[in-house]
Amino acid sequence: MSVALEEARAAAARGEVPVGAALVDPAGQVVAQDGNRTRELNDPSAHAEMLVIRAACRQSGSERLTGHSLYVTLEPCAMCAAVVAAARIARVYYAASDPKSGGVEHGARVFIHPQSHHQPEVYHGMAEVEAAALLTDFFRQRR
Amino acid sequence: MSVALEEARAAAARGEVPVGAALVDPAGQVVAQDGNRTRELNDPSAHAEMLVIRAACRQSGSERLTGHSLYVTLEPCAMCAAVVAAARIARVYYAASDPKSGGVEHGARVFIHPQSHHQPEVYHGMAEVEAAALLTDFFRQRR
Repeated sequence: MSVALEEARAAAARGEVPVGAALVDPAGQVVAQDGNRTRELNDPSAHAEMLVIRAACRQSGSERLTGHSLYVTLEPCAMCAAVVAAARIARVYYAASDPKSGGVEHGARVFIHPQSHHQPEVYHGMAEVEAAALLTDFFRQRR
Repeated sequence: MSVALEEARAAAARGEVPVGAALVDPAGQVVAQDGNRTRELNDPSAHAEMLVIRAACRQSGSERLTGHSLYVTLEPCAMCAAVVAAARIARVYYAASDPKSGGVEHGARVFIHPQSHHQPEVYHGMAEVEAAALLTDFFRQRR
């Protein structure tokens, strides 16, 4: 999660919503890390989670990341939760909850429906205060 | 929808699940068209809808596609529904329903939750028989 927090801080420094993610392979190696880049890339799908999943799939030459773990500083939205399921990621660790846009424990709750072809293990709350403070500070400065 | 169906047929010819999409700007021009490329690109997010949304955003230099219409041959999954909402697409037209993986009228029902920051108008059923037949034929040949 410390790598994901670093990426969230780097995103804030680029003027992007400060969310960061890291993808860890079954051997425990970080295989991809990135932060939000929706503004930089003019891409509404360029959330941190999506970017690390695409990067790891490209590197491994596979659509699936079986046995991998995703660390992200904020609860994934419905889009990111669904791509986690599509990639068959084994475990998701997220720091802060996101009542406004989350799609795991809020709203669409993507993983609980039979249409989700895979249900990862989900853990949350680690580094929650730090991850949430990054977001609060970012939006306070913008107002 | 005929452009989307063409793209679905082209996807089948490439060995991809035959789903196609077209994005139409407020003036009625097709600004992006594509079919599934998850296998070709080793990208679990490379659904037809995601590819046309990313292409149109790249071309327009914006994360948002206000006033645009998306035509797609199959009910979008939760991932694609969420990126439609993120891009503020005005209208979604889909041909066949997808009880197995859909995220609009099935499962996550992404647009009905307050966490979806935008609710497009949704229309479905046009060219349903043709779009569904493409999928049925594709999976029958694979078995």
